Amino acid sequence: MTDQTLPPSAHATVKRGAKRARYDAETLHAILDAMPLCHVGYIIDGRPVVIPTLQWRDGNTLYWHGASTSRTIAAAAGQDVCVTVSILDGLVIARSAFNHSVNYRSVVVHGRPRLIDDPVHKEAALKAMIESLTPGRWDALRPMHPKEFKATGVLALDLDEASCKVRNGPPVDDAEDYALPIWAGVLPLHSRWGTPEDDSRVQPGVEPPEAITAFPQGPMFRGL
Amino acid sequence: MTDQTLPPSAHATVKRGAKRARYDAETLHAILDAMPLCHVGYIIDGRPVVIPTLQWRDGNTLYWHGASTSRTIAAAAGQDVCVTVSILDGLVIARSAFNHSVNYRSVVVHGRPRLIDDPVHKEAALKAMIESLTPGRWDALRPMHPKEFKATGVLALDLDEASCKVRNGPPVDDAEDYALPIWAGVLPLHSRWGTPEDDSRVQPGVEPPEAITAFPQGPMFRGL
Repeated sequence: MTDQTLPPSAHATVKRGAKRARYDAETLHAILDAMPLCHVGYIIDGRPVVIPTLQWRDGNTLYWHGASTSRTIAAAAGQDVCVTVSILDGLVIARSAFNHSVNYRSVVVHGRPRLIDDPVHKEAALKAMIESLTPGRWDALRPMHPKEFKATGVLALDLDEASCKVRNGPPVDDAEDYALPIWAGVLPLHSRWGTPEDDSRVQPGVEPPEAITAFPQGPMFRGL
Repeated sequence: MTDQTLPPSAHATVKRGAKRARYDAETLHAILDAMPLCHVGYIIDGRPVVIPTLQWRDGNTLYWHGASTSRTIAAAAGQDVCVTVSILDGLVIARSAFNHSVNYRSVVVHGRPRLIDDPVHKEAALKAMIESLTPGRWDALRPMHPKEFKATGVLALDLDEASCKVRNGPPVDDAEDYALPIWAGVLPLHSRWGTPEDDSRVQPGVEPPEAITAFPQGPMFRGL
């Protein structure tokens, strides 16, 4: 991903609402880093299947994981997939049904992911997953058992065919509708982390690390 | 959708994490009604494409809409699609990387949607969309113009092949890991509606209706 502001390919060009499209790396990375939940589209037995999972990013590459033996890992490695990340920021309530909208930030990535076989790369990717959510946590965890490492499949997809869409602001009504005595505006949606809930079996005197208590001020769900 | 608690078909059976699967109508409807954002998977030019949009429900049928001329409407009518709705409720932070998880509620619906041609049905569906978000609002809006009605394509998908997955609660660690001096627990994620933001061009004296000011107590993002 360079700092391009044009679509990387015809395939990755936003087709509807093109004025809301963005292709720059700053916007792309900010949305991906703000929302770990993604929806991955696979083709399985000739049908589309959309599965929610967590994604994380390392530079120009997006990652996700699953059970090594899962049908989704099998359907992804070297096959066309589509990974979509969406943040709903509010309802846009207009003076007519037609002009209703939503404020949102979204990313759509196309491509053929690679299953990471190299153990050094795979461990680095799994470490990056934990660290992207809770910085400094990897070294505090019980180390991975070899059977856990083997049971985990990690997929990597370069961000070469990615597009973003962003909508902000008030409704855009028809010119003549602004004179109508109808309320219009935005109902914002806020997502934020609550207070950490201790597992009841945490050993006495063990407190949550700062990476977790500091989460509400952390990097997730940042605005652009 | 009957009150079944068994999978409706082999195709709609949850393959991974089957102990988290649910197939009852109460769970299905509660998740769909709690989260309007959905991700629809289509096959376009032989590739999977996942597009975020809003869904709404009327009885046993799920709806979404788009521009009549869009490639997604063309790719959906009478074709296999997959509609997925996911609510991220928290991060589940374990004592090992492998036992990390998320708390969530999700629905996956398979099937072939119908493009609604009948104008009475189509208007009823569009009214249901507005009313599901802001009850009582439809009659307060400027009525739809015929060209707007024509420009809107509405898709309907019966909830016959749907499955839910729900995870709640603390991490499930390996028995021997509970003795380790490592914090573990849940970081809950809360989504809630903020204060309505008036469009700056609202006519003097026009206040937001109760359906909007009452939103924080409204039906969306309810827990199960």
